[in-house]
Amino acid sequence: MRHIPVPLISPADALPGPYLLFLGDTKEPAYAKTAFGLRDWAADRCVGEFHIEGATVSTGLAAMTPAQAHANGARALVIGVANAGGFIPDHWQPALVNAMEAGLDIISGMHTRLADMPALQAAAIRTGRQLIDVRRPPSDIPIANGRKRSGKRLLTVGTDCALGKKYTALAIARAFSFRGLETHFRATGQTGILIAGGGIPLDAVVVDFAAGAAEMLSPDASENHWDVIEGQGSVFHPAYAGVSLALLHGSQPDVIVVCHQPGREHVLGHSQFRVPSIEETIALTLQLGRRTNPCIRCAGVSLNTAHLGEAEAEVLLASESLRLGCAVADPIRGGAAFDRLVQACLEN
Amino acid sequence: MRHIPVPLISPADALPGPYLLFLGDTKEPAYAKTAFGLRDWAADRCVGEFHIEGATVSTGLAAMTPAQAHANGARALVIGVANAGGFIPDHWQPALVNAMEAGLDIISGMHTRLADMPALQAAAIRTGRQLIDVRRPPSDIPIANGRKRSGKRLLTVGTDCALGKKYTALAIARAFSFRGLETHFRATGQTGILIAGGGIPLDAVVVDFAAGAAEMLSPDASENHWDVIEGQGSVFHPAYAGVSLALLHGSQPDVIVVCHQPGREHVLGHSQFRVPSIEETIALTLQLGRRTNPCIRCAGVSLNTAHLGEAEAEVLLASESLRLGCAVADPIRGGAAFDRLVQACLEN
Repeated sequence: MRHIPVPLISPADALPGPYLLFLGDTKEPAYAKTAFGLRDWAADRCVGEFHIEGATVSTGLAAMTPAQAHANGARALVIGVANAGGFIPDHWQPALVNAMEAGLDIISGMHTRLADMPALQAAAIRTGRQLIDVRRPPSDIPIANGRKRSGKRLLTVGTDCALGKKYTALAIARAFSFRGLETHFRATGQTGILIAGGGIPLDAVVVDFAAGAAEMLSPDASENHWDVIEGQGSVFHPAYAGVSLALLHGSQPDVIVVCHQPGREHVLGHSQFRVPSIEETIALTLQLGRRTNPCIRCAGVSLNTAHLGEAEAEVLLASESLRLGCAVADPIRGGAAFDRLVQACLEN
Repeated sequence: MRHIPVPLISPADALPGPYLLFLGDTKEPAYAKTAFGLRDWAADRCVGEFHIEGATVSTGLAAMTPAQAHANGARALVIGVANAGGFIPDHWQPALVNAMEAGLDIISGMHTRLADMPALQAAAIRTGRQLIDVRRPPSDIPIANGRKRSGKRLLTVGTDCALGKKYTALAIARAFSFRGLETHFRATGQTGILIAGGGIPLDAVVVDFAAGAAEMLSPDASENHWDVIEGQGSVFHPAYAGVSLALLHGSQPDVIVVCHQPGREHVLGHSQFRVPSIEETIALTLQLGRRTNPCIRCAGVSLNTAHLGEAEAEVLLASESLRLGCAVADPIRGGAAFDRLVQACLEN
C-alpha cells in the first residue's frame, strides 16, 4: 500500500514540490516523524533526503545534495525534523542557504518562523526563493456562510487528540483513490499539509473564521467527488472543542468516521477529564453536525491498536464491531476489516 | 438605574480612564452606538464629549476640549462613533493628535488599527501617549486547562447573534452589584470591553486559544464572587458555534441565561438557517456545558422585546414564563419580571 500516492489538494493551493527531505544532524528517530510521514504518505512528492554532519537517522530515500536534488526535479526543501525545543538551530542555516542557492524553496512546519531568521531572509531575497511556513493560514479566509456545497465529504472525528484522525483520513483517501474515486485529502494540520502539498492549519486561524476556513478547504466539487478531511481535537475536549465544532460545521460532512485509542481513559494532558465513549462521540457529533448537513451519518470506527499484538487487535476489532453494530477497523493494519469500513463510507 | 456603575474588570487589565467620548462630525445617531452605550453603562467612566465641526449627534454629556477633559480627570479619548466604512477618516486625525497633545491616550474599537495611521503613530511617539486597539487580544493567552476555578460564574448565551447577550449580562451584573454582591462584568467584545474598561475580544483570538481566553477572563475568585460573562454567538450558529462552545467550556458557568428575540425566525445573515427554539438552546447548552461544569443550570430567559409595546411585552413575558416554567424578563424593561430572573440566578 505504501506507494500509492495520496491525492493532492487543488494545485491552486499547492506547495512547491517535489521535496528534498532535510534531516539536519538528527540522531533521534522520534524527532524525524515529519520526514517518515512524508516518505510513507507522499512518496511521489519526495526526491531524496539531505543531512548534515552528525546525522544517524535516515528515511531510506537516496541521500543527495540540494544541487543533485534540484537536478532530479526537487523544487523545495522540507524541514523534516524537529529538535527538542521545536526551533531551527543556527548550525542548520548554512545547509538551508545552500538549498536556496541550488534553487529550492524552503518549507517548514515548525513554530519558529523562517522569515524571522535574518540569514535565511537575506538568502531568500538574494536567490529569489520562497520561505514557506505551513503553520500560517491564508489571509483571505471568509466568514462561513453555511451554504450546502456540492460533492461528498468525509470528516474524521476523535474521542481525543493525537489518536489517528490524520492517518485514518489519509488511509481512507488512499483507499477511495485506489477504487478509482475522484478524491482529495484535505489537510488541517501542518504534517497533513506537507503530505497533501496544501491545506489550512486550522489551529492557527482566528476563531471567528474557523468555520469559514473549513468551508474554504473543501469547495464545491462534482457530485461523485469525495473530500476526505483531517479532523482536529474532539467536541468533548476542554481546550479544543471549539476547533472541532467549527471544523464539523464548516466541513458539513456526509460521513463521519470516529477515531479512538482503546485503553485511553483520560484526555491527553487533561487527566481530570475522562475520554468520552465511542457511542457518546457518535451521538454528539451527529447531533451537532446535522445543523449544516441534516444527512450526516456515521460510517464506522477507526481504532488505533498500535499497542496491541496482531491476534489481540483482531479480536478487539471484531468484538467492537459486534458491540457497536458498525464497521470497526485499524487503517494502519488494513485487511478485510478496513475494506468493510471503506465500503461503509461509500454506501448510503 | 442609569447611574449605578457597572463593576469593572480587575485593574491589572484595565484600560486607561476616565474617558472623553469622541463623536467626530457624526450626523447619524445610529453611528454613535458606542458613545451611547458608554454613557448608559459606564457613566462613571465618562467625563464628557468632544466633537469636531459638523457634528449634530450628542450624548448629552458636557462638551469639552481634550485639555478641559484632561483637567477634569480624563486620561483617554474613546472613539465613540463609527462611519459607514468602519474606518477612521483622515479629517478626524487632527482632533486625535490634539487629544494626545493634551495628555490623553487614544482607545479605538474600530477595525482600522490606530498604529497603522502614520500621523497618529508619530504623535503617539512624540507625546508619549498610547494607541490602544481593543480588538487586539492579549499575547499571553494560555491553552485552556479545564481546571475548575473558585467563585461563581454566569454566562449569557443566545439563540442567535445580536439580540441582547451583552446588555443582559450588563443588567444582571448591575443588579447583582446593587444587591451588594461582589461582581465583575467580563467583556468578550469591543463595546463591552470599553464599558468594563477591560476584557478580551474573543472573536479575534486564534481558535486553539479561545477556551484559554475564556479561562483567563474569569480567574479564580472568592466563593461568593460572581463573574457575569458576556456571551458570543450561539452553539447553533453556522459560522460562530465554535466561538460559543469555546466560551462555554472556558467560562465553566454555574448559571446560564438564554437570550432570545421573539419573532426572529432566521439566523441574521444566514436566512437558510432557522433560529433554534429557547428549549433547544437550553438543552444543548446544558449538555455541552456539563463537560467543564457538571453543576451548570439555566436560571431563566432574557427576551429582547424592543419591538413590542409595553402591554404586549408584559403579556409575552408572563406567557413565556408559564410555558417554559422559568423566569422570563426583558432586562431593559426591568420590573418585577427582571427581579425574579435575578433572584433565580442566585438561587441554587
